[in-house]
Amino acid sequence: MSKLTDLPKRILIGQALRSDKLGETLLPKRIALPVFASDPLSSVAYAPGEVLLVLSVAGVSAYKYSPWIAVAVVVLMFTVVASYRQNVHAYPSGGGDYEVATTNLGPRAGLTVASALLVDYVLTVAVSIASGIENLGSAVPFIIEHKTACAIAVIVLLTLMNLRGVKESGKLFAIPTYVFVGGVFLMIVWGAYRGLVAGDTMKAPTADYTIHAEHQGLAGFALVFLLLRAFSSGCAALTGVEAISNGVPAFRKPKSKNAATTLALMGGLAVTMFCGIIALAMVTKVRMAENPATDLLKNGTPVGDGYTQNPVISQVAEAVFGNGSFLFILLAAATALVLFLAANTAYNGFPLLGSILAQDRYLPRQLHTRGDRLAFSNGIVLLAGAAAVLTYIYGADSTKLIQLYIVGVFVSFTLSQIGMVRHWNRHLATETDPAKRRHMVRSRAINTFGGFLTGLVLVVVLLTKFTHGAWVALLGMVIFYAIMTAIRRHYDRVAEEIALADQADEHAVRPSRVHSIVLVSKVHKPTLRALGYAKLMRSDTLEALSISVDTAETKALREEWHNRGIDVPLKILDSPYREITRPVIDYVKSLRKESPRDVVSVYIPEYVVGHWYEHLLHNQSALRLKSRLLFTPGVMVTSIPWQLDSSEAARRRARKRAEWNAPGSVRRGPVAQPRKEKAATKK
Amino acid sequence: MSKLTDLPKRILIGQALRSDKLGETLLPKRIALPVFASDPLSSVAYAPGEVLLVLSVAGVSAYKYSPWIAVAVVVLMFTVVASYRQNVHAYPSGGGDYEVATTNLGPRAGLTVASALLVDYVLTVAVSIASGIENLGSAVPFIIEHKTACAIAVIVLLTLMNLRGVKESGKLFAIPTYVFVGGVFLMIVWGAYRGLVAGDTMKAPTADYTIHAEHQGLAGFALVFLLLRAFSSGCAALTGVEAISNGVPAFRKPKSKNAATTLALMGGLAVTMFCGIIALAMVTKVRMAENPATDLLKNGTPVGDGYTQNPVISQVAEAVFGNGSFLFILLAAATALVLFLAANTAYNGFPLLGSILAQDRYLPRQLHTRGDRLAFSNGIVLLAGAAAVLTYIYGADSTKLIQLYIVGVFVSFTLSQIGMVRHWNRHLATETDPAKRRHMVRSRAINTFGGFLTGLVLVVVLLTKFTHGAWVALLGMVIFYAIMTAIRRHYDRVAEEIALADQADEHAVRPSRVHSIVLVSKVHKPTLRALGYAKLMRSDTLEALSISVDTAETKALREEWHNRGIDVPLKILDSPYREITRPVIDYVKSLRKESPRDVVSVYIPEYVVGHWYEHLLHNQSALRLKSRLLFTPGVMVTSIPWQLDSSEAARRRARKRAEWNAPGSVRRGPVAQPRKEKAATKK
Repeated sequence: MSKLTDLPKRILIGQALRSDKLGETLLPKRIALPVFASDPLSSVAYAPGEVLLVLSVAGVSAYKYSPWIAVAVVVLMFTVVASYRQNVHAYPSGGGDYEVATTNLGPRAGLTVASALLVDYVLTVAVSIASGIENLGSAVPFIIEHKTACAIAVIVLLTLMNLRGVKESGKLFAIPTYVFVGGVFLMIVWGAYRGLVAGDTMKAPTADYTIHAEHQGLAGFALVFLLLRAFSSGCAALTGVEAISNGVPAFRKPKSKNAATTLALMGGLAVTMFCGIIALAMVTKVRMAENPATDLLKNGTPVGDGYTQNPVISQVAEAVFGNGSFLFILLAAATALVLFLAANTAYNGFPLLGSILAQDRYLPRQLHTRGDRLAFSNGIVLLAGAAAVLTYIYGADSTKLIQLYIVGVFVSFTLSQIGMVRHWNRHLATETDPAKRRHMVRSRAINTFGGFLTGLVLVVVLLTKFTHGAWVALLGMVIFYAIMTAIRRHYDRVAEEIALADQADEHAVRPSRVHSIVLVSKVHKPTLRALGYAKLMRSDTLEALSISVDTAETKALREEWHNRGIDVPLKILDSPYREITRPVIDYVKSLRKESPRDVVSVYIPEYVVGHWYEHLLHNQSALRLKSRLLFTPGVMVTSIPWQLDSSEAARRRARKRAEWNAPGSVRRGPVAQPRKEKAATKK
Repeated sequence: MSKLTDLPKRILIGQALRSDKLGETLLPKRIALPVFASDPLSSVAYAPGEVLLVLSVAGVSAYKYSPWIAVAVVVLMFTVVASYRQNVHAYPSGGGDYEVATTNLGPRAGLTVASALLVDYVLTVAVSIASGIENLGSAVPFIIEHKTACAIAVIVLLTLMNLRGVKESGKLFAIPTYVFVGGVFLMIVWGAYRGLVAGDTMKAPTADYTIHAEHQGLAGFALVFLLLRAFSSGCAALTGVEAISNGVPAFRKPKSKNAATTLALMGGLAVTMFCGIIALAMVTKVRMAENPATDLLKNGTPVGDGYTQNPVISQVAEAVFGNGSFLFILLAAATALVLFLAANTAYNGFPLLGSILAQDRYLPRQLHTRGDRLAFSNGIVLLAGAAAVLTYIYGADSTKLIQLYIVGVFVSFTLSQIGMVRHWNRHLATETDPAKRRHMVRSRAINTFGGFLTGLVLVVVLLTKFTHGAWVALLGMVIFYAIMTAIRRHYDRVAEEIALADQADEHAVRPSRVHSIVLVSKVHKPTLRALGYAKLMRSDTLEALSISVDTAETKALREEWHNRGIDVPLKILDSPYREITRPVIDYVKSLRKESPRDVVSVYIPEYVVGHWYEHLLHNQSALRLKSRLLFTPGVMVTSIPWQLDSSEAARRRARKRAEWNAPGSVRRGPVAQPRKEKAATKK
């Protein structure tokens, strides 16, 4: 047990050992990219399809607008990436949008961002898994036939993995992400070669289908609205961009610079893949309809309910690589895997954000404890439950789920950028160095444009998607906001209640004497231990108290007390109703009444057991008594444990649990070092 | 608050106040009869029907045996009543069959009886409510159409009533029971008058139906078997007879004599009603079939699934009083009500038996606490759950449920009577007074015959009903038996573990010094109170311990500590992972390692809150820390409560709960007086 011998040293030199260990886990860019970018990169698996799907409402002819929408998404992506590069430099602590909004716009804005992000994490899980299932389903029909069940099975699997605390490694993320990115680029290059150089005609499986336009020949305002809706759907490609700004502490030094580079890299990859897939979809004539059963026609007749509309990426892969080819299958598998990894990031982000919110007292304090298994478990189960409910309600249909998505993302984008503008304004007010000022003015311009553009997108998303499902996301945000406000109000009220008024205060509450009572039922080892400990405490008076519920037992107790010559007076209270709690409470109250300035100290021998069912068999009366005693002012309650043999099992379990690793710890990086404060400072 | 001023007096003179109060609730015979006999009296509502139903298997011609079966039931009833009159005199403490079997036949027999009775209570609820619903249904067709739902609704209603602790009064039982008994007697007298004096022809609604005999012209062994099965079903009339022997303490003095008289009265009433109903059923030509849908024929064709077979008592009432007449409706209502009251008796018997079993450590100790709301609640919910499951599985069909019944009753009858024989043998061995000896020999003869007859019936019941459902009841008994044995074994093992070996033992465990640690997070009132209390305890060393999870907070804490001049040294441990529990545990272990003979006393300030959800917001870290600390030997943990303003609400609730009355307390009588042991004896 070298651990134990290390203890005094560890107490002296503080957390040195741990932070050394953590140092090793800092991420180089080539690992950081897949770790943080699985969410935004994977969204190119569904975003292009959503664009075509919306456009199809106006018929296949409207597909011609898709390149323009792609351009708009690219512009937006570059703007957002440029904006977040400013965030990363200005806030290297990893607080992310919540920190930026709270610091610069106040707690309400911060809480709004937090609510939006919490909703967003739930949707990341639901959308990514639904999309992953659809991609897998394009290769394995069985999966698509049991879509909802499979999606929920994946949620359950991820939940169990995260509850178990599987240590996440960079490699886990790197391999599938690079396979996915490589596969998509290969597809784009090979497709370009076949189309432009070899002159092949590549045909998507739906190329010969026609679309029944719900609104043929849309024009004017209606057309603009439709294009905006398509653009809103395309914006799904931007979700998860903020992940890097939350993860700055996990990067190798220079942290901010590396994070900014990774951000730019991620943006570049994402837009290239997005545009490439849209272009290939146009070339291979992919046909997507919002309601394929009725609006997608094969030889003039609707395809009907049995038809499964495969994702654009898989249709394109089929056209380029050939159906059932190795590369087709590989890309489908990598796509699904990357999407599941994207869902997994939410499993880490949700409890992490929860811990930050707990620190600000918007959530129960104990969530603040980092890497605490229980705190994480609660967050993970809440997240998984919400995602599973959404998945079930929407039948694991990514198209329907996406209508709820993006609102949260753009709320947080917008508020974060506005916050950054304020940040620069504040700094510009004091900064005098012209070079630095120039830099700040440039940053401010970028953030201003970013805030303006994302705000505009938010308005567009709300307008075009409100009735399609965005209201559900907004409702979720309002609920989170209300709960967190209520919790904060409660903590504030309590803090006020327990705050010290002035210096004199502390002396007013000092009691004069202690009257100790040891609860006794029988004379056995736990009782003697309790008496021994109580005697050590040298209180002013000490007596043993027993409640008589059985005449014979009481008599035996009194005799044994006498025979063993125990030198503590034994008081016996009769309990006509065989109650335990009431006589003790009444007795303690009577003592308090006699001398109100005294304190009563009650010692309760307690059994420490090893199995949950043993709890049902022991200590129940003690626990109830304790919880009632605590309501009485001027009382303290001491548990004197007696470890039963069976408790050894529980101790071993607890030790094992202590070695548990919080999921996502790689992504979070080490905790900020306490500055110059070394442990074990005695005053 | 006269309660508080009474306290010193109550401590001095013990439970006088309470037992005075309880004295008022002792029951006179006229109230005791309905209170204890609602179960056996109400069973005449279903027992006669069950007899006819079984006989119908051999065709209507077999109905001619029903008077003989009635005679057999009467003989059995008289035997059982006579036997229990002996029990009541010999065991006036109200322990019932469990006590008799344990004392005379040993713990295994006692536990068998207890298991049988527990199963029996569940079935009393299920059968009585099902039968009550069927009787109500004969007047209100809607109820019979939603039989299962209505039966479960009644179970839920009774459960809620009992959980709330509605105080049960003698009147509650007296009125419906006397209305029921009076109604049945009026029916018998009026029926006899109409048939014998007025010469009317009374026809039951099923009088013109014919029965398709499954086994026409049964003879020999098969006929005997069928008659025995019919007799077994008729024995349902005997359930609940033992209730009076459990309730002796609730009778007015002379308790045993009054109880014996009430027992005889009950037996007389039950057999008269049973025979009267059978006779009227024969006269009015009631036709009952085991499977009415196929075997009951109207004009030669089966009545089919839509037909509802009304209970015999209601068919007879219809024939005597006329369908829809006031008396018919009144009797149906009184029958249902008495049956529901019979079910209610199980709600009281089950937790009471649980409390006795807990005293003998077959069930968790805390159930022993009499009138403890939580203990009762657990018992009530368990009982209601089991009864509801049975009701659901058997579709609230009293005929099917009765197949499970009676096994338990006769197991307990038989073992109890055998135990009584042993009891008399033991007393005869020492008794010399010839008059007393004669009396004892007579009693022994009665109990011997009782034991023989009930044992015979038990064999008959098991043989004839095993495959019809008795195996379910046996399985239930085995499960209860196994669980209780396991619990007892656990308690015995623990008792052995903690028992003191010899006189010297207690000195070996005495520690030498106390090192006190007060856990601190901020400087506020709860912290200062904890420090103040800890100082009072005058331990050998005292220090405050804080875990640094946030650099800024730690710095603020240290400054405030200094500014306020708190004279307790403050130790701060850094926690790189923001853990609370591990650093404290490690520190405590290191202290223990330094000086293994010392004790570490950890003071934890704890918030006392008023609402369940506030528990989620406070103390969670403290609780987890505490449960981990208790695993460490040589540690005691003291909670120093700080009552938040909101805790006032909880205190009020707790006070209200303390005034709660255990259901069935009327029936149980006061607790046996502790002999000569007055409270507050100081040594």
